[in-house]
Amino acid sequence: MERIRTTEVGRHAGEQVRVEGWLRTIRSMGGLTFAVLRDGWGEVQAVWELEREPLTGLGPESVVGFRGSVVPSPQAPGGFELREPAVTAISAVTETLPLPLGRRALRAGLPVLLDSAVISNRHPSRRAMFGLASETMAGFRGELDRQGFTEIATPKILGTSTEGGSNVFAVDYFGRPAFLAQSPQFYKQAMVGVFERVYEVGSVFRAEPHDTTRHVNEYVSLDAELGFITDHHDVMAVLRDVIAAMIARLVERRAAELVALGAAVPAVPAAIPELDFGEAKAWLATQLGEEVVGEPDLSPAEERLLGGLAQERWTSDFLFVTGYPLAKRPFYTHGDPDRPDRSNGFDLLFRGIEVVTGGQRLHRHEDYLAALESRGLDPAPFAWYLDAFRFGMPPHGGFAIGMERFLMQLTGVGNVRLATLFPRDLKRLVP
Amino acid sequence: MERIRTTEVGRHAGEQVRVEGWLRTIRSMGGLTFAVLRDGWGEVQAVWELEREPLTGLGPESVVGFRGSVVPSPQAPGGFELREPAVTAISAVTETLPLPLGRRALRAGLPVLLDSAVISNRHPSRRAMFGLASETMAGFRGELDRQGFTEIATPKILGTSTEGGSNVFAVDYFGRPAFLAQSPQFYKQAMVGVFERVYEVGSVFRAEPHDTTRHVNEYVSLDAELGFITDHHDVMAVLRDVIAAMIARLVERRAAELVALGAAVPAVPAAIPELDFGEAKAWLATQLGEEVVGEPDLSPAEERLLGGLAQERWTSDFLFVTGYPLAKRPFYTHGDPDRPDRSNGFDLLFRGIEVVTGGQRLHRHEDYLAALESRGLDPAPFAWYLDAFRFGMPPHGGFAIGMERFLMQLTGVGNVRLATLFPRDLKRLVP
Repeated sequence: MERIRTTEVGRHAGEQVRVEGWLRTIRSMGGLTFAVLRDGWGEVQAVWELEREPLTGLGPESVVGFRGSVVPSPQAPGGFELREPAVTAISAVTETLPLPLGRRALRAGLPVLLDSAVISNRHPSRRAMFGLASETMAGFRGELDRQGFTEIATPKILGTSTEGGSNVFAVDYFGRPAFLAQSPQFYKQAMVGVFERVYEVGSVFRAEPHDTTRHVNEYVSLDAELGFITDHHDVMAVLRDVIAAMIARLVERRAAELVALGAAVPAVPAAIPELDFGEAKAWLATQLGEEVVGEPDLSPAEERLLGGLAQERWTSDFLFVTGYPLAKRPFYTHGDPDRPDRSNGFDLLFRGIEVVTGGQRLHRHEDYLAALESRGLDPAPFAWYLDAFRFGMPPHGGFAIGMERFLMQLTGVGNVRLATLFPRDLKRLVP
Repeated sequence: MERIRTTEVGRHAGEQVRVEGWLRTIRSMGGLTFAVLRDGWGEVQAVWELEREPLTGLGPESVVGFRGSVVPSPQAPGGFELREPAVTAISAVTETLPLPLGRRALRAGLPVLLDSAVISNRHPSRRAMFGLASETMAGFRGELDRQGFTEIATPKILGTSTEGGSNVFAVDYFGRPAFLAQSPQFYKQAMVGVFERVYEVGSVFRAEPHDTTRHVNEYVSLDAELGFITDHHDVMAVLRDVIAAMIARLVERRAAELVALGAAVPAVPAAIPELDFGEAKAWLATQLGEEVVGEPDLSPAEERLLGGLAQERWTSDFLFVTGYPLAKRPFYTHGDPDRPDRSNGFDLLFRGIEVVTGGQRLHRHEDYLAALESRGLDPAPFAWYLDAFRFGMPPHGGFAIGMERFLMQLTGVGNVRLATLFPRDLKRLVP
């Protein structure tokens, strides 16, 4: 008999079916034994009129097959159950799980949960999270495909530092010094010269020694870059469409998971409100009762306050902050033509946390040489990158969405590690 | 006036349009000046009745805008051209290109071509190649989505070696030894316990000191893994469908690029022929006139010969080789139940080169312990991975397609570096 998926059981009422999967729960009560079997798509309940006998020797997470008839059962999850199915043991588990998976909520401390990610990721709440991750990637690609972008895959072992900072992981490349990509920045810009509009879904690596709820040291960056823009507002418009498409896809395909995780689905305004960095700082001074003059960035606490402001003033979960000081942004950032110390860079805050950074980039070769010189950087290691601009580049810009941070904010899970399949942080290198 | 794409020019015959892009070629002859402008999607020709005057100061690869009327012109690429357009300089280029992009074929030695990848990738032949790469990734995902797979993104900085070999790049992880993923093998297996059928498109890193036409040290691996299989033949059936879907998508969406690259599009047999490793070696002995007894793998020359055999005997560009000696495959490989020294591992040869490797994996915890012991490997570093099997895994298997090798064979380009956007090899760390 052909195996069917648990999600197909309801279509076979009154018939004999075969399902296979993991024993999630086993309960005996009132002379009955109940078991819930989980497969790659969902769950189905089975019931027997005797005390566990058919499941002797099979503990939770045993891989089994059930073969029996489908009976409507209003109390069962999905409204159907298997009555008295024959059981086949595929892989028996007798050891005690590192954490119990049978309960509705996964009750375990963060270290246990992450140490046992191989097992804890099997819990419905974790499966729901990573189902969202899968559709987030697909939603990102789908919208950019629609807008004429081409997908690229760029190298992650680099000989040239992107951001010029020290937060890079060093790699021994056949005895030569190299390091891991903090972003595909240089490569996606170069590829604007080829396909004009490009995107990449790929791993990036940040050797930042931060132990916070919003940092991991390796994450999935959803990167896009496009040419022939007027300024950063064209980039922000594409980003707005991408965010809207990702959320629409999640609602369309993962509604059950969003509900299970208690995610509040945000509305994406047709135009996401925009606040100038200077105005933001001035408003923050009124809130915090202190003037933080000259501070070139927003602190996490300030971002949270601005998230509240966006809610109050615009009823928006999203807020663009623009006009960041040029000195604080990477050397390739385009300045604001009207304000020499300000940039055409932006951040997108989602419920008070930065989840996207982007902006217009420089596109003239001479501007790059000047920007590098003003920061005391030697142009020699950047020669191959600078060639893109020596040989013709249009005004362009782009953005990078931190996928796990986006999911953290969407689900309200409170720690980016919980939105990461197998997180890497200061202490965690396995699993 | 709204900018249109060069590929839309034909729809605006008789109208005024604006296009923007790169000046690919500039020619003057018979009192006329011709220029070809390239944008992110295609090309359009412009013509003026005077000697280059409108393009003064604008060398090849200058970024420009043309505004003029669309006129049918049978000799022009696409059948239309812009007559006497007004020219706007966006980014003027006056320097000589590192290699000429105006010719139909890109005539440059491999080192020049790769050193100047930022510029050479703009040539139509290179754009065609990377357009194929983009659709190959999409075709892979599309077929697996259809078959109920879930996309995952797994870490690339690892604390546990996958293959146990020495060909790994070392990373300094906050003072702790770590290395780059040679494959997502352990993680995709663990995720079979979560989603049953998973895939990943991601970078993998091999510190193999090989200087050949078929090795690079970083490439895109198209990985899939699935549970509840009978044996490796179930995996091979999915792989066959994936290859067929990738090729079908390329034909549907990138026919012009396939033609431009002179790619011979292969037929994918409903069942790809399969040859046992032992039979392959016996046949090779008849061809080579020598018995290479006990050699546990196929040499590149042997793979080429088998490619010829597949053509002759089955008229197939593809050939599965199965039954590889267990000793030569990684420790997680499932043995052949009928032949203790043989494995349920397979390779897929495409025109005589291995482009995919895969197989059935072990799924019982005790089998893993025995396999590690028989190879003299300490199980301790694998503890987190072994937990997947301690706590219930079904029979499963998977495969990994080397994307750039697949493209190399599809296009016949002869060197995997030419199918890689920015290749990494023994000598090459930039661009």
